[in-house]
Amino acid sequence: MTGFVPKNPDFEARVRDSFARQGAMALIGAELAHVAPGAVDIAVNFRPELSQQHGFFHGGIVGTAADSAGGYAAFSLMPADSSVLTVEYKMNLIAPADGERLIAKGRVIKPGRTLTICQVDVFVVRGGREHRCAVLLQTLMTMSGRNDGPKE
Amino acid sequence: MTGFVPKNPDFEARVRDSFARQGAMALIGAELAHVAPGAVDIAVNFRPELSQQHGFFHGGIVGTAADSAGGYAAFSLMPADSSVLTVEYKMNLIAPADGERLIAKGRVIKPGRTLTICQVDVFVVRGGREHRCAVLLQTLMTMSGRNDGPKE
Amino acid sequence: MTGFVPKNPDFEARVRDSFARQGAMALIGAELAHVAPGAVDIAVNFRPELSQQHGFFHGGIVGTAADSAGGYAAFSLMPADSSVLTVEYKMNLIAPADGERLIAKGRVIKPGRTLTICQVDVFVVRGGREHRCAVLLQTLMTMSGRNDGPKE
Amino acid sequence: MTGFVPKNPDFEARVRDSFARQGAMALIGAELAHVAPGAVDIAVNFRPELSQQHGFFHGGIVGTAADSAGGYAAFSLMPADSSVLTVEYKMNLIAPADGERLIAKGRVIKPGRTLTICQVDVFVVRGGREHRCAVLLQTLMTMSGRNDGPKE
Repeated sequence: MTGFVPKNPDFEARVRDSFARQGAMALIGAELAHVAPGAVDIAVNFRPELSQQHGFFHGGIVGTAADSAGGYAAFSLMPADSSVLTVEYKMNLIAPADGERLIAKGRVIKPGRTLTICQVDVFVVRGGREHRCAVLLQTLMTMSGRNDGPKE
Repeated sequence: MTGFVPKNPDFEARVRDSFARQGAMALIGAELAHVAPGAVDIAVNFRPELSQQHGFFHGGIVGTAADSAGGYAAFSLMPADSSVLTVEYKMNLIAPADGERLIAKGRVIKPGRTLTICQVDVFVVRGGREHRCAVLLQTLMTMSGRNDGPKE
Repeated sequence: MTGFVPKNPDFEARVRDSFARQGAMALIGAELAHVAPGAVDIAVNFRPELSQQHGFFHGGIVGTAADSAGGYAAFSLMPADSSVLTVEYKMNLIAPADGERLIAKGRVIKPGRTLTICQVDVFVVRGGREHRCAVLLQTLMTMSGRNDGPKE
Repeated sequence: MTGFVPKNPDFEARVRDSFARQGAMALIGAELAHVAPGAVDIAVNFRPELSQQHGFFHGGIVGTAADSAGGYAAFSLMPADSSVLTVEYKMNLIAPADGERLIAKGRVIKPGRTLTICQVDVFVVRGGREHRCAVLLQTLMTMSGRNDGPKE
């Protein structure tokens, strides 16, 4: 329960449709684990292709999953005729992303007509337990009257 | 010419060796385009697998290339018996990453015994011209006495 | 209740003593409203001298109170013979700081031997109610064997 | 020479007028040292009232000067009927702000209709020489049709 009322009743279908068009999500093997108004989780199972030099999840992969989780959390609250754009994010990697699965939990902390602010907490699952490994603050922009589809 | 004197004369071999062990760099098709003391460029050619929903480079892929570019710029100045860790970064996406190639240019702006600060400028090549599409500020940590190899 | 066990039983006296030496805290009229292990609140009453051009608290004043709140939250968990240094922070101003009082609540989210990560939520009190107006992610460093007093 | 063409020929008067209404700038003794299209410098002479516990400029004061320098650099390029708002900034403190004078140099790196991105480099003057002590990335928003004056 996030307490947010989506402007678009079809928000979940829109999030899932847009996610399916992100080549980068397929590349890293990401899945949409949870979609609610203002709250989206994205999960990624570990593969050696996702590693940095020590064999943990690469910080950039953590950031990629987190950027999309926050982006879709924001997008879930936007009007039907709009698109979402990441303005910026800042990520602190607070523990090694050493585990079998990554879960990025994007949450809107301040929705707005033009700008939306999200916090994303990223957890790594190790031995069945979730450990927080990263935290992000992210700013997103509503692109009004801009279809969310591919460039033409 | 960066003006930095590397503590380890073998810095380039160490950077190339560590880069080769990052599964995530192979996954996104990244190459080390330039390695100098305190300055590392990483380039990525566009493929649909690297896209967000509009068909541009995904912000997370931009961040992944940039995180490694800054990380290896910092690593190039570290002593031989150390390893590098990204503490945090903040990225502003200032223009659509719409182009055929991405070049992340990591530059040390403040080396330190424990912490190193980098700026990374990311350019997208479109029609043969470089356009800056992102800028990062990044904090990295020297892990002394810690081999840069895989976890044991 | 933060669940943190301070390394120094005199943590509160050390925080209060260091705070008293920060000229900037007196200049803006800041007071230490709460000191617990890993959790420090700093409050500032509004005066026109603290304003930006619209008459609200200036973003820099919000950042000044927040930087010290997070810094002292981190310092409260550090050993007796150490000092604290802000490495970096990122602040999102999520609502106008329009009110009669500001309360910056610094909380350690990841303590560490060398680096500590804090989140700071800043609230503005308006009509007796707290409204969150800013959120920060902050990285702090323990300076071991470095007295917290003035430069010599 | 910044290469930017201001939308408002009276940009300098507007910047100076708005600056004069920021109580916080007077409180810390800040002066407008340079105003050009997309480039504003703010200088602050040291006083003990601006210090942290070691007697250097407080990080929050560095941030306050820098936030206004970047904010006015952005504002200098905005249309006449608008106001500027800081969305967020991230600051790395890269050296102790130990000196007799602080100069925050705000530069627009990407102007936009809605959002403007600035980099701010902050220097401390010590023994007559400028040393860079902080670097910021900052996002600002144009508030169209919103007078820059006090709240009514």
